[in-house]
Amino acid sequence: MKKLGLTRIKILAVIIGSSLIGISCSSSKNGTGNGLITLREQGSFAVGGSVITNPGTFDPKTRTPDGQTYHGDHAYVFYQIPDKARKLPLVFWHGIGQFSKTWETTPDGREGFQNIFLRRGFGVYLIDQPRRGNAGRSTVAAKIDPIPDEQGWFGTFRVGIWPDYFPGVQFSKDPEALNQYFRQITPNIGGFDTEVISGATSKLFDRIGEGILVTHSHSGGFGWQTALKNSKVKAIVSYEPGSGFVFPTWEVPAPIASSSGPLEGVGIPLEEFMKLTKIPIIIYYGDFIPAQQIDNPGQDGWRARLEMARLWRDVVNKHGGDVTVVHLPEIGIKGNTHFPFSDLNNIEVADQMSKFLKEKNLD
Amino acid sequence: MKKLGLTRIKILAVIIGSSLIGISCSSSKNGTGNGLITLREQGSFAVGGSVITNPGTFDPKTRTPDGQTYHGDHAYVFYQIPDKARKLPLVFWHGIGQFSKTWETTPDGREGFQNIFLRRGFGVYLIDQPRRGNAGRSTVAAKIDPIPDEQGWFGTFRVGIWPDYFPGVQFSKDPEALNQYFRQITPNIGGFDTEVISGATSKLFDRIGEGILVTHSHSGGFGWQTALKNSKVKAIVSYEPGSGFVFPTWEVPAPIASSSGPLEGVGIPLEEFMKLTKIPIIIYYGDFIPAQQIDNPGQDGWRARLEMARLWRDVVNKHGGDVTVVHLPEIGIKGNTHFPFSDLNNIEVADQMSKFLKEKNLD
Repeated sequence: MKKLGLTRIKILAVIIGSSLIGISCSSSKNGTGNGLITLREQGSFAVGGSVITNPGTFDPKTRTPDGQTYHGDHAYVFYQIPDKARKLPLVFWHGIGQFSKTWETTPDGREGFQNIFLRRGFGVYLIDQPRRGNAGRSTVAAKIDPIPDEQGWFGTFRVGIWPDYFPGVQFSKDPEALNQYFRQITPNIGGFDTEVISGATSKLFDRIGEGILVTHSHSGGFGWQTALKNSKVKAIVSYEPGSGFVFPTWEVPAPIASSSGPLEGVGIPLEEFMKLTKIPIIIYYGDFIPAQQIDNPGQDGWRARLEMARLWRDVVNKHGGDVTVVHLPEIGIKGNTHFPFSDLNNIEVADQMSKFLKEKNLD
Repeated sequence: MKKLGLTRIKILAVIIGSSLIGISCSSSKNGTGNGLITLREQGSFAVGGSVITNPGTFDPKTRTPDGQTYHGDHAYVFYQIPDKARKLPLVFWHGIGQFSKTWETTPDGREGFQNIFLRRGFGVYLIDQPRRGNAGRSTVAAKIDPIPDEQGWFGTFRVGIWPDYFPGVQFSKDPEALNQYFRQITPNIGGFDTEVISGATSKLFDRIGEGILVTHSHSGGFGWQTALKNSKVKAIVSYEPGSGFVFPTWEVPAPIASSSGPLEGVGIPLEEFMKLTKIPIIIYYGDFIPAQQIDNPGQDGWRARLEMARLWRDVVNKHGGDVTVVHLPEIGIKGNTHFPFSDLNNIEVADQMSKFLKEKNLD
């Protein structure tokens, strides 16, 4: 690291303890069985995307770009199907700056929703959306700079206000947990393109058939777009959706003011919108969301998003839909960050999701 | 894609068939059992890396980089431990332009070494090396351009000479296989740093304990470096290692001429080199490697690397080591590309690896 020549940059040695690897699998509380995960199959594939074909003729001796192709903008998917799987699989989709890790081992080394719902008998598909993680081959150029930003995410993800953790936050104080949490971040390669992203995910449903989409944060908005594109999305569970709430053109609410900037709804034709009234949708938000506007933008943005989600619920349901918004502290589940599914109480959070799936006959 | 403004670029619609998803798991020929994979645990973590700490004081209201950190240059690891696992796990490491997908589902939708060796009772760790795939957070800036290059890889990876497949090549002619193959490529983010890369992998062995390292191509050279750093690497299986063969300083052979450019050995102190004589090492190369220099650089480079591997074997073994070089066609296994472990005959290739592990009491 010294070769960076940045003398004012302090390099911290990273001590990786060996204590996190021994994940407990005595899991009767997690789901089924004897602590073992029994899979009928697992694998990975790319889905969606496009191909750039350069004009000219390929010359194997010079190997210039002439006449060569470039496949990019696909999603990458890793899937596991347990033995005797339930009918509908779960398709898990990460949020901004994140990848499939969101659903895997938690920052403090416990099982995430991938394992928890495999144990509960669901097929599990984990997406890396186009231009992220293992789907890094982007058809547009990218410049990526190592700009320190983690204390900002610590706040925006509502772990606390750096360097303080929120009182009662469901996040381990072990420094190694924070190390793992920060290393869950991976860059976007080449910008966001909603059509590319939701197009690839729609093609995933074409390939696997009917399923339940589980979104987080930024993928919340992409998830609504995917459901508009593909009726094989039979339900959506959305953890803390951010921007991109879609309304009938004439029913877009006024922007909601926030110290993180105004939050706007997106207008679409009523006929399109009506597709979202055909499937059960549940939205969860965690704790530490202020009731009134405050001047900490990382935290205040979630107040605006929760308010927008409630407005959206009311409009979808007015048109015959089935949207539920759950603010977890209101049902007694406290201390959750922006990542309820990997927080210390994630079994309790998973139980809520299981309850929803059961109520809607989706399990 | 039109927004690229490259009017001469032709965009091909990508049709993803649904036929590849039904991986057969009637696997008595693959390994053990009833077609099911039974896991005691699985999970993921980051390992190694460094931290940039910006000077100044973090302000949660402005969220400028002042006083913020940036964790990067770690490896990302996904692991699975089967029930009643053998003592030593296998650590699988991808090659250039690739990621963990190398070992997962093959381009034509069959099981890769991840599943094959899980079924054979080994714990399996899949690495994304620092600055690649899910380990995309690089401490150095990167500029990534979508430059068409796939026909070049088709040749360098010895599938054929575009647009022709080599006669008898162990690669599916299904266009979807080629689509998946090209989408296994993902960019390097920020350049190669051997110390960063082998440092992270050495830390992985510190964390998990003794294991067997399985490298491919570019990671062949990084693998020797990892074994020099960490005695917990108890054996190496290397598929088609490329550059980076290390010799005692006074025994570095003359560069080997090739139409892909001269191939050079790397000198290190004898005392360091001797560490590589303490573990069993096996190296495999596939088919379509010319016996004499030819003017197709993609193919000819492998002639030079195979020759260098044999020189290296002789020097290591002269110093008391245990290196075997297997040129697969010479033992009657024909048609293999640069990716023998995912070729159509990958069960046969896996059987060779199992035989080696058994002979060396590593299973």
